[in-house]
Amino acid sequence: MTETGGAKLSRGERAARRARQRRSRARSPFFRLPQEQPRSLLPPLEFLDPEQVEAIHQASMTILEEVGLDFLDDEALDILARAGAKVDREARHAWLDRGLVMEAVSQAPSAFTWHARNPARSLVIGGDALAFAPNGGTVFVQDLDRGRRPGVLDDYATLVKLTQMCNLLHTAGEQLVVPHDVPVPLRHLERLRLAVTLSDKALMEAAHGRVIPQDALAVARLVFGGELPQDGPVIGGVINVNSPLRYDSRMLGGLISYARAGQVTIITPFILAGVMGPVTMAGALAQQNAEALAGIALAQLVRPGAPVIYGGFTTNADLRSGAPAFGTPEGAWAAIVGGQMARRYGLPYRGSGTLNSSKLPDAQAAYETAWSIWPSVLAHTHFVLHAVGWLEAGLTVSLEKFLMDAENLAMFHRFLQGFPVDQESLALASIQAVGPGGHHLGTPHTQARYATAFYQPFLSDRQPFESWQEAGGLDAPRRANRLWKTLLAQYEPPPLDSGLEEALEAFIARRRQELAGADLYG
Amino acid sequence: MTETGGAKLSRGERAARRARQRRSRARSPFFRLPQEQPRSLLPPLEFLDPEQVEAIHQASMTILEEVGLDFLDDEALDILARAGAKVDREARHAWLDRGLVMEAVSQAPSAFTWHARNPARSLVIGGDALAFAPNGGTVFVQDLDRGRRPGVLDDYATLVKLTQMCNLLHTAGEQLVVPHDVPVPLRHLERLRLAVTLSDKALMEAAHGRVIPQDALAVARLVFGGELPQDGPVIGGVINVNSPLRYDSRMLGGLISYARAGQVTIITPFILAGVMGPVTMAGALAQQNAEALAGIALAQLVRPGAPVIYGGFTTNADLRSGAPAFGTPEGAWAAIVGGQMARRYGLPYRGSGTLNSSKLPDAQAAYETAWSIWPSVLAHTHFVLHAVGWLEAGLTVSLEKFLMDAENLAMFHRFLQGFPVDQESLALASIQAVGPGGHHLGTPHTQARYATAFYQPFLSDRQPFESWQEAGGLDAPRRANRLWKTLLAQYEPPPLDSGLEEALEAFIARRRQELAGADLYG
Repeated sequence: MTETGGAKLSRGERAARRARQRRSRARSPFFRLPQEQPRSLLPPLEFLDPEQVEAIHQASMTILEEVGLDFLDDEALDILARAGAKVDREARHAWLDRGLVMEAVSQAPSAFTWHARNPARSLVIGGDALAFAPNGGTVFVQDLDRGRRPGVLDDYATLVKLTQMCNLLHTAGEQLVVPHDVPVPLRHLERLRLAVTLSDKALMEAAHGRVIPQDALAVARLVFGGELPQDGPVIGGVINVNSPLRYDSRMLGGLISYARAGQVTIITPFILAGVMGPVTMAGALAQQNAEALAGIALAQLVRPGAPVIYGGFTTNADLRSGAPAFGTPEGAWAAIVGGQMARRYGLPYRGSGTLNSSKLPDAQAAYETAWSIWPSVLAHTHFVLHAVGWLEAGLTVSLEKFLMDAENLAMFHRFLQGFPVDQESLALASIQAVGPGGHHLGTPHTQARYATAFYQPFLSDRQPFESWQEAGGLDAPRRANRLWKTLLAQYEPPPLDSGLEEALEAFIARRRQELAGADLYG
Repeated sequence: MTETGGAKLSRGERAARRARQRRSRARSPFFRLPQEQPRSLLPPLEFLDPEQVEAIHQASMTILEEVGLDFLDDEALDILARAGAKVDREARHAWLDRGLVMEAVSQAPSAFTWHARNPARSLVIGGDALAFAPNGGTVFVQDLDRGRRPGVLDDYATLVKLTQMCNLLHTAGEQLVVPHDVPVPLRHLERLRLAVTLSDKALMEAAHGRVIPQDALAVARLVFGGELPQDGPVIGGVINVNSPLRYDSRMLGGLISYARAGQVTIITPFILAGVMGPVTMAGALAQQNAEALAGIALAQLVRPGAPVIYGGFTTNADLRSGAPAFGTPEGAWAAIVGGQMARRYGLPYRGSGTLNSSKLPDAQAAYETAWSIWPSVLAHTHFVLHAVGWLEAGLTVSLEKFLMDAENLAMFHRFLQGFPVDQESLALASIQAVGPGGHHLGTPHTQARYATAFYQPFLSDRQPFESWQEAGGLDAPRRANRLWKTLLAQYEPPPLDSGLEEALEAFIARRRQELAGADLYG
């Protein structure tokens, strides 16, 4: 877990190594990826007309009022009852009047700033900005050298490092992989330690139960000097609905804990149409909308104005097996319409970037990922989770795919910038000077724009066949395999105040003692 | 080159084989892909505002008037001079007044029907329809068994067969691969023979010079019973501009020949920004527009109302090497804006589907292809050429990638259909009946829609890791490798009138004699 091995090197050796690293970085376009968030000036891609959006809205209101949802948590039922919802305490069920829901939802901000410990890494959620976050919730990790294996803490550290180094990723990640070598009740402590010490990007931590958020908020207070900022959240997590129409106590504990502290809840129904929702996408989306709005309303009842993100994760099941199907036309519809629904309520929207069912970083992984990221970006998804690394329906994160996906995020950043149309760029004088049959490679107009005219890939290969073959004939995953090793060798942790580091370690040491053998959700 | 080997089998054996094939087809979703063209109800994705479109239009008018183009063909110069263009015969150069160009362009139809020899395969170009055509112009072919090699006639036949079998492809293809084992002056005859005998889809043949189109038109007349239909074209080809600003005699011969016969010319500048056009995309697109409109105007001067397609193929060069860069953000801009320009003139639009620089059917091939097909489909490209198979900047066609790309075309077909939003599909009764925590897999609402609710892939794998591993752990290319072999084993040629077949063979035999050793472009 030591990051630099610097103690074993002399001062001169360290300086030489840093100089080598600087030279190497100067060579790789990966290190020149833009730090600022992408901003989209395109109108969001829409699939439904306003009447259809309204029909889904009305259907979801009927679901909230007439079907209701299970809320398997007494505090949640108390809050809903106090707000005027009809609650059946024995059945742990509540029916939410549309007036109650829409009034509460209207309290949610349409945009907010999510502070990172490095202010330059703070990010905007909402408006014309997009944010990309790495994979989350994966159980296995794979790479070409070691194959597929259950994740361990060292893998977690690797993923935080790669996330920190990739400018296109805007949070330090949440549950990047399960650290199987850490006892269950201590895992969140290790995740928080690595997120704070190896990254200076915006924090995320599982919104599970009440203990983990309490520890996450305690760490956040340490990071931000004792108190949480008043002008925006510093940490957030995903709240998954147990679709259909059920919030369990683990998720409600997390929702209430983060919302009460003014932190980010990303309220995300998990619907496989045909299994956890109707087989028809209109019905699945009406259910998604009802479930998301119920959670968002609850967050606003806990603390009006709490930052929330409307999450969509609806796709279809493969009906022959019941398995989830990712990167599908139906999932693309849902991603786009989810954005339309979120906009109807003036809420920031969360989607996903790299959903796919492939078992390895092959062409299927790449084209299904395209069926996930293209709709998400064009739908103007404010917060794109799982934007790198996913494989195998989210069970596995691939180190090679992590970088392949990052290349695509960088391409989208470029794409969304668009290009100028003006006298300079229309280049009539240059077209005239070159004339028919000439070429533009050496013109002053080209030379002046040589370095920045086009997106320069860090992974894609454009060599002629023979040169590519002479260079080893490596496919994209094998090139990515080389690159992540190069990157990890060049990783340097961001500056960390030594007082903070000590306080963090002391906190974690104390909590490790207190939580050993505990049931976090008891 | 025999297709069935049927002569060696008894009648009973043939019947048994056909029964096996029918059973096998019933199993593979590939054979159930929709035959009708995809239709897009989405508004086209646009990148520029109307003022920017107008600025590009105005710049291109200035190019046509003040810079002009080379036309390296006397007949073309005659036609332009007669129409009032200023022509320098010695320099083989013409300046085209905007009035002349726009008047001519306005004669072009905005939509037309392209007849196939099987009327059920005739296709609409324009309106809300999209058409997909296979790869063209490739030199090498590759598959996992035999690697990369120069194409031969047998490869050509393989590609026509796969094209014929894939319902998502709407033409029989043009120059699918170079048949190196056929002498140069006879290649078009063999291409035409295979296109007519192995496929019943719309014909394409190289618009190169005057001899090839003359033979192609002769074959088309045989296919259509002696005369070409008057209500729409039956054959077409791509006219590439030698950008910047030059039409060579080979392309002009093809353009004039097809246009005079009322057949389809797909007028496509080939611009690598920074090499064959300005490094700025606005300038490259202004040049593309000037070049495309010049050729379209010429086609209309040859025959007012001749069916034309406005072609865009602009992408960026990799400025470090001068190599073309495909599947790039800049190429995506150009694909989208090309559609905007074509719409400004009421012209059908041609783009490309699978442009990429990868040397093998890996993840790079797939994600760069996504950067080609996603913009093309969303820009509402009426004619998507190279919609399957491309690799290596168009030098190679991959049999495995052919099917991977076909899977994506089928997904787009589904995606563009959208989904209903009505009382049935909103499924409130079913949501109520299932209730919280239940599941929808066995409900009557799901069962009634089981078979058709979702796109069913023929290549993508959604099995759990263990099942996938037990089944051989094949990546997408290896599964595609199995599939194209299965398909080829099941290929049956479409019915062909024996009189037509004899006439075709007689024509080809005669022309083989006449053209042996000829210079087609002399």
